[in-house]
Amino acid sequence: MNNPDASAKEIERAIKDLKAVGVQLFTNVNGRPLDLPEFLPIFEKMAGYDLPIWIHPARNSSFSDYKTEEKSKYEIFWCIGWPYETGAAMIRIVFAGYFDRWPNLKIVTHHMGGVIPSNEGRLGPGYDVLGVRTPDEDYTGLLKRLKRRPLDYFRLYYGDTATFGSRLAVKYGLEFFGPDNVLFGTDFPFPPMKGYGSVGDVLLLVEEIAGDAEVSSKIFEINARKLLNL
Amino acid sequence: MNNPDASAKEIERAIKDLKAVGVQLFTNVNGRPLDLPEFLPIFEKMAGYDLPIWIHPARNSSFSDYKTEEKSKYEIFWCIGWPYETGAAMIRIVFAGYFDRWPNLKIVTHHMGGVIPSNEGRLGPGYDVLGVRTPDEDYTGLLKRLKRRPLDYFRLYYGDTATFGSRLAVKYGLEFFGPDNVLFGTDFPFPPMKGYGSVGDVLLLVEEIAGDAEVSSKIFEINARKLLNL
Repeated sequence: MNNPDASAKEIERAIKDLKAVGVQLFTNVNGRPLDLPEFLPIFEKMAGYDLPIWIHPARNSSFSDYKTEEKSKYEIFWCIGWPYETGAAMIRIVFAGYFDRWPNLKIVTHHMGGVIPSNEGRLGPGYDVLGVRTPDEDYTGLLKRLKRRPLDYFRLYYGDTATFGSRLAVKYGLEFFGPDNVLFGTDFPFPPMKGYGSVGDVLLLVEEIAGDAEVSSKIFEINARKLLNL
Repeated sequence: MNNPDASAKEIERAIKDLKAVGVQLFTNVNGRPLDLPEFLPIFEKMAGYDLPIWIHPARNSSFSDYKTEEKSKYEIFWCIGWPYETGAAMIRIVFAGYFDRWPNLKIVTHHMGGVIPSNEGRLGPGYDVLGVRTPDEDYTGLLKRLKRRPLDYFRLYYGDTATFGSRLAVKYGLEFFGPDNVLFGTDFPFPPMKGYGSVGDVLLLVEEIAGDAEVSSKIFEINARKLLNL
């Protein structure tokens, strides 16, 4: 991604020659956001192929949580920083207008969209008045240009069920994105953790939360087949 | 808070003379975290009074979301940055061992604990192995010193229902903190927003999500009476 032209060529090779069904991007490129003009051709290309982009968070302890500190303590950068990074990237892509520009753009967000589903109220009523909290910025033109209400764009993303076995994240992610926009994911391989030991655990959790065979088969198979044109 | 001794005196006056039933702190003090030794007497004092500390997020657009940028765009600092700040402060207080030190410490987190409830899996299985992602830090002693599993401390916090009318955030929060640790909050006064116009809207939302009169009366009244020793 530090060489977007080369990335575009490699995407072409991966998809055309090697039959890849999508690409993964990290939420930032050496600290730069994904909505910069130089990365636009990547999104354009994937929309052209009608294949998804996966977004994975990237942040390390050098991203401090307090202005007076140099490092993030207690792995906060990972624990809540990764879901935050995912959310920030999603917001940037929405306001860059990419979903209006390429209505078939498919983006899968790891960890069930990170902080997005739990912030429905802030993304909804909060973003309807984008600009009231930053008088030094003029966002009125932006809001008018967008074809939909800001909140509605966030439901166009896909989320996966890799949430370290979190019942709440899977449940409410499913409610936020809806049964057609959730995909099975586990984040394995990883060392076994207390209360979260295997792919089978996630499978059982998803089955339980989905509640019926129709929803769970969407999450396990149907949505992926559709998304990946299989 | 830039003068903790004066803060401590003012807390004393507010509680003893003016009958205040708690104090509010912001999530950072001029960019500094709340777990620094100079702020410890504030926590100690409030535990001594058996009265709560409210925590409110504080961050502005000067807190950038990307290392290569100077400012936070699209009010990301507010939309997801505030819930993040709340979460970071909560994590710092947990690992500072304050809930072991003062078992009756009462902390009310605004906006239903921000990003905490949706990150149950990362705070749970993820923090059980705190340190594996930061080989340059040694957290083994810390984990041993804590009397409980990290995740369990987060359920000792209280959350309020001020979430800009978010059905999901109230649901997540109520399930995470439990019916005894949720308080009614609305974030009013504010200009009316689409789909979220009045204190009454939040009241109806909470009643609906609570599901029965026992739970809703806890949220509306009983929990507050208990917390504030009324």
